[in-house]
Amino acid sequence: MNTAELIARKASGAALDPSEIRGVLAGFTAGNVAPEQMSALLMAVRWRGMTVAELSAWTGAMVDSGDRLDLSSVRAPVVDKHSSGGVGDKVSLIVAPLVASFGIAVPKLSGRGLGHSGGTLDKLESIPGWSGTVSAEDFLAQLDAVGAVIAGASASLAPADKKLYALRDVTGTVESIPLIASSIMSKKIAGGAGAVLLDVKVGSGAFMPSVDPARELARAMVDLGTAAGVRTVCLLTSMEAPLGRAVGNALEVAEAVEVLQGGGPPDLIALCVAVADEMLALGGSERSSAAALQEGSAYALWERMIGAQGGDPSAPLPQAPHVREVRAGASGVLTSLDARAVGNASWRLGAGRAAPGDDVAASAGVLLRAQVGEQILAGDVLLELHAEDADRLDAGEHALESAWSIGDTAPPPTPLILEKLS
Amino acid sequence: MNTAELIARKASGAALDPSEIRGVLAGFTAGNVAPEQMSALLMAVRWRGMTVAELSAWTGAMVDSGDRLDLSSVRAPVVDKHSSGGVGDKVSLIVAPLVASFGIAVPKLSGRGLGHSGGTLDKLESIPGWSGTVSAEDFLAQLDAVGAVIAGASASLAPADKKLYALRDVTGTVESIPLIASSIMSKKIAGGAGAVLLDVKVGSGAFMPSVDPARELARAMVDLGTAAGVRTVCLLTSMEAPLGRAVGNALEVAEAVEVLQGGGPPDLIALCVAVADEMLALGGSERSSAAALQEGSAYALWERMIGAQGGDPSAPLPQAPHVREVRAGASGVLTSLDARAVGNASWRLGAGRAAPGDDVAASAGVLLRAQVGEQILAGDVLLELHAEDADRLDAGEHALESAWSIGDTAPPPTPLILEKLS
Repeated sequence: MNTAELIARKASGAALDPSEIRGVLAGFTAGNVAPEQMSALLMAVRWRGMTVAELSAWTGAMVDSGDRLDLSSVRAPVVDKHSSGGVGDKVSLIVAPLVASFGIAVPKLSGRGLGHSGGTLDKLESIPGWSGTVSAEDFLAQLDAVGAVIAGASASLAPADKKLYALRDVTGTVESIPLIASSIMSKKIAGGAGAVLLDVKVGSGAFMPSVDPARELARAMVDLGTAAGVRTVCLLTSMEAPLGRAVGNALEVAEAVEVLQGGGPPDLIALCVAVADEMLALGGSERSSAAALQEGSAYALWERMIGAQGGDPSAPLPQAPHVREVRAGASGVLTSLDARAVGNASWRLGAGRAAPGDDVAASAGVLLRAQVGEQILAGDVLLELHAEDADRLDAGEHALESAWSIGDTAPPPTPLILEKLS
Repeated sequence: MNTAELIARKASGAALDPSEIRGVLAGFTAGNVAPEQMSALLMAVRWRGMTVAELSAWTGAMVDSGDRLDLSSVRAPVVDKHSSGGVGDKVSLIVAPLVASFGIAVPKLSGRGLGHSGGTLDKLESIPGWSGTVSAEDFLAQLDAVGAVIAGASASLAPADKKLYALRDVTGTVESIPLIASSIMSKKIAGGAGAVLLDVKVGSGAFMPSVDPARELARAMVDLGTAAGVRTVCLLTSMEAPLGRAVGNALEVAEAVEVLQGGGPPDLIALCVAVADEMLALGGSERSSAAALQEGSAYALWERMIGAQGGDPSAPLPQAPHVREVRAGASGVLTSLDARAVGNASWRLGAGRAAPGDDVAASAGVLLRAQVGEQILAGDVLLELHAEDADRLDAGEHALESAWSIGDTAPPPTPLILEKLS
């Protein structure tokens, strides 16, 4: 294989053979295809896209670069879940124990946050004692015994993705729908579940700002999963405003517990029920999770799930020593609250990180005292800024400038679930 | 400067600021911008093209990466010449002494051949004793005393181009008109001449197969030269059939000498006169070179130019020990003879190289016993294949399969000069 000629062919608009795709990815993993060649190919893929056959071969090669988890020892149906990430998105924390409480196993491999977007592992690490590092053996045992595990992905799953992502991150090739789809689905396929529910977020706080590219990404992922024998359903959901009232690590865990105990804000409850019900259906159940949430019956499974990974579910969560209240300047209806701005504020307050490996502050974040559509009076507290370091409060407040609007009439309710693809 | 963000911006279709372009090229030369970042940017440039301002900054940064020759000590007007390369293109060998014989200095920095296309240095090295390695001091002295120098480019001229070209060669980013234009013009601008004549070849034996991209390249180069204060004229010339009757290193030198002594094939003479007359005009002369060629009056300057670089112009040129004659299978008019196929045959016979650094055989090549438009009889010798190694004759002949056609009527004469841009 002449790699330069292959890259030039892709750049000219031709489709590569599946064997060529597999060869170049295997060569990159083995170090025979140089990073400067792979980055040029990645840019050519960003330019030209990939055919269904190319994308399938690309994703398959990434799966084949590592191990594929064998979950055949788990007696229950196994349903995985993935979110493309947003602001205040603590849905995984809630639906993993919720779905498991119906006898369906949920092996959730999670990541860390970056920029304005939080990460499930960062959130759970605010629980004293909890660890997301789980051996393959313990992972299987907990999945079988408890029914839900939330853990960091093993480096042995789709290692080509980690190497490729590090390259994409420095070469301007992150924004490519086929590359995003293959990155996500290679890990889901290698994760070994028989079914997966994808939540692709759309809006200011999401990676995808509008419905069209989000739908394209969803379609590509559903097709990749299905072709690999993984039953795959994708919801497109709105991320214009933060989800729920809590943004930040410990703040989101507290809100997840609130929902699991029968409380919490209606938008978050509605999305959790929608996601959990799709997961139940993928697991072969026709039941709905709404009543279980309302009755708080899944909270016991949360306690077992957290406890199995060393966490103390009854220990107090970290509290920020510095809280600043931000008040409304006018009376009326909160007509918008920009998710991206709130995410950035939470990041500036210490809850997020600028680069992988940075520390995050467990107690930092933003608490919404009002959500879109609610009546407020001038002088009411609209937001609370939480920080471990008082010096960060100004930056957090600055990130929220022009982040909301107050009007005379409530905006028409925006649907939370935009579309469903399967 | 965040390089990844800059690459992503270019990939999204935005134009970069000239300061950003200069920064990224300086960073690449200094080793601060990684090869995998530059190759992704090169692919984004291949994708999106460059604005006039971007291309000018890019080329300027390449010039600034090294020295710019100071030719102010040369008393004559100085006119450079560049060809985009073709099959049988020995025009530089002829026009350098020809134009110099009119009192205009020609400092011709040349390269080596690759693939089906020959290189001026390779050709001249078939002359016993001749060397293309000339110190900067000797270069200036010879230019002033003799009026013509043909030498290899110093590594100190536009070194960023050498580094970039090595990267483009392995990353599928050679085929980009702005990148080709900046590669050529950065070296011409750094070469220090006040004027340059460009010959962009179009057709099967050229890098550019059709007129439209060739014109685009020509336009970009003329604009770059002009903007940098170098008076620049470009001819688009046909390269469907080989130029002249000789293809190969020593074979082409012999034909160049033939033309300089008043003989040679009409197509080659016509192109040499056209190119030389444009160079004379750029040098401020209104004379034509046609008579000088016919009278052989520039041959004395050839002898001085070759002698000044250690060559013996009267020494016999290497002769191939193995010659195979290829005969016409039918009678009629030779209606076509594919330049690319003849170039490939010459390469297979040993005159060309597959990779930089490979040796070439001085005496190998193809001699045309008939040119397009000539009457031939079945059994006439059409081509001679010359090789130092008899084992290469079959490969040379194989490359010529279906390379020509014989018909009943002569094709309409195709113009050699297609367009002129200035």
